[in-house]
Amino acid sequence: MSPYTNRQIILLEKPVGKLQHNHFGLIENSIAEPGDGEVLVRVHYISLDAANRAWMQGATYRAAVEPNSVMAGGGIAEVVTSKAPGFTPGDLVFADTGWQDFAVLPAKHLIKMPRIEPLTHLLSIYGVAGLTAYFGLLDVGKAKAGETVVVSAAAGSVGTLVGQIAKIKGCRVIGIAGGADKCAWLTSHLGFDEAVDYKAGNLFKALRAAAPDGIDVYFDNVGGDILEACLPLMNNHGRIACCGAVSQYDGTPTPGPRGIPGLLTIKRIVMQGFIVMDYFKERDRALADLQTWVASGKLKVEEDIIEGLENTPSALIGLLAGENRGKRIVKI
Amino acid sequence: MSPYTNRQIILLEKPVGKLQHNHFGLIENSIAEPGDGEVLVRVHYISLDAANRAWMQGATYRAAVEPNSVMAGGGIAEVVTSKAPGFTPGDLVFADTGWQDFAVLPAKHLIKMPRIEPLTHLLSIYGVAGLTAYFGLLDVGKAKAGETVVVSAAAGSVGTLVGQIAKIKGCRVIGIAGGADKCAWLTSHLGFDEAVDYKAGNLFKALRAAAPDGIDVYFDNVGGDILEACLPLMNNHGRIACCGAVSQYDGTPTPGPRGIPGLLTIKRIVMQGFIVMDYFKERDRALADLQTWVASGKLKVEEDIIEGLENTPSALIGLLAGENRGKRIVKI
Repeated sequence: MSPYTNRQIILLEKPVGKLQHNHFGLIENSIAEPGDGEVLVRVHYISLDAANRAWMQGATYRAAVEPNSVMAGGGIAEVVTSKAPGFTPGDLVFADTGWQDFAVLPAKHLIKMPRIEPLTHLLSIYGVAGLTAYFGLLDVGKAKAGETVVVSAAAGSVGTLVGQIAKIKGCRVIGIAGGADKCAWLTSHLGFDEAVDYKAGNLFKALRAAAPDGIDVYFDNVGGDILEACLPLMNNHGRIACCGAVSQYDGTPTPGPRGIPGLLTIKRIVMQGFIVMDYFKERDRALADLQTWVASGKLKVEEDIIEGLENTPSALIGLLAGENRGKRIVKI
Repeated sequence: MSPYTNRQIILLEKPVGKLQHNHFGLIENSIAEPGDGEVLVRVHYISLDAANRAWMQGATYRAAVEPNSVMAGGGIAEVVTSKAPGFTPGDLVFADTGWQDFAVLPAKHLIKMPRIEPLTHLLSIYGVAGLTAYFGLLDVGKAKAGETVVVSAAAGSVGTLVGQIAKIKGCRVIGIAGGADKCAWLTSHLGFDEAVDYKAGNLFKALRAAAPDGIDVYFDNVGGDILEACLPLMNNHGRIACCGAVSQYDGTPTPGPRGIPGLLTIKRIVMQGFIVMDYFKERDRALADLQTWVASGKLKVEEDIIEGLENTPSALIGLLAGENRGKRIVKI
């Protein structure tokens, strides 16, 4: 046994309907020493993502998180003890650490990270959120100068970046978010051209008014009714980048959007699902651009940092309810 | 006035629900002489397509067919009188002639066709059906040897060709069609590996059994429940070529398929609508391949020819009910 006590957040049962606090429990354990090829890491920051909720529903692009196991989640961690070549104490890594203070992980599951400040940027702009926004908008959505880009969950970790990158690329940008405050923030603080409040009713009419030239790229984080509202406004040869379907994660899934596949055919739309892992080999190109834009002040990195492992369940429940602006991260 | 009497089939009202005979009327007219830049043509063959029904619902990739106008439809016709440079009597053309004996059309709306025999091949294998199958399967669906291809409306004009081209390209081919007879015909006559009868119930289970390695390319002619059944069986990085949505044309449109967009994301699926007109510039490549395959006997051209303009409404109603095998054409 290592000398460390490890607090762990356990998923107690598979949630049906809305995620609640009682789906989670906190336990304390001692943690084992790493075996050959393994590394013991101390977790500094945990990334919270709507996808965490999807992982509880069943197998996705990864295995499901099963009841009575440590809740999964990506984190930035520091090597404490290494039994694997290439890793030494003090190394900073990204891994699926799970929601806990420490983790013993196979070295092959770790990605070494540069020690930049603030470290949280490794989970936001230079992490999954930043790369998802970059590749989803530019490689999947193929957004070009002069086009109209719509992004849903626009005030979230990915949405804030999609909108800003689209502006940098010369697009007209419309964000969809919940509530007048968030919408005002998107236009005044982040420079979106328009923001539409989906909670205000009649999303289709509001979108049509905001996008008089139609939509060329819809970056979809939510699916459901919002996707359905965007479809009739898509221009011929438009692209829909399917990044997530948060409307379907935390409740009873609804039927799919009307107009599929008919409108896709009539308008020759490409609707493409993607997962950022598939672009991992190309990340240097994205990181170079993102660093340039951040350094020049063109791209604002919005982070929403919550303190304390014990608050991770609340932080995810709140994220699913739309509490956060930008990337929500838990500091351990 | 020209010396010709022209019979015309008129769409009397916008059909709501199933298309019926009483939606159509037959009238006789004299037909005008062509003006400058126009051509008078005699129609030989009219192409029947599920899309004809969609045109009655509203604007698609073309303007809607309005009540009290001649029903639209593509046809092979012969020039009778020309007031346009480049066209002389006897020339064979493809055009949206409408459902009538004669038409006066602007020359710029005509496509000159070679005089091959049988002329019906200009509407089937070397017409919209053949080019749709070719570009939809190979350019949109990107089917490759060893992959599993599923096609719906498999016994129809496009489906029969999609399945055979996929076999030529070395794919495993599963057709979805209505009724045991059609299914037996697909495998015994056209060489499909499997055929699944969607009318027999539990399509998902039957498809899963027929596609044990999953689906790489789904060529979708129908949308609706059949698309929904295919989605969970799609492999990662699968492609869905959205060619049509005949399940939605002739009745009340249903909600979209469940699993969109969630499954698209998880499986990184590309779902792409297309219209064959967009590939018109590249048609020589397709025609060369199709001619080679037909000449070698690898590709069977299935045609279902109905006689008489007055039978065009019944022929379309029957096509929407799945009566035809292969390309349905009306001989005028």
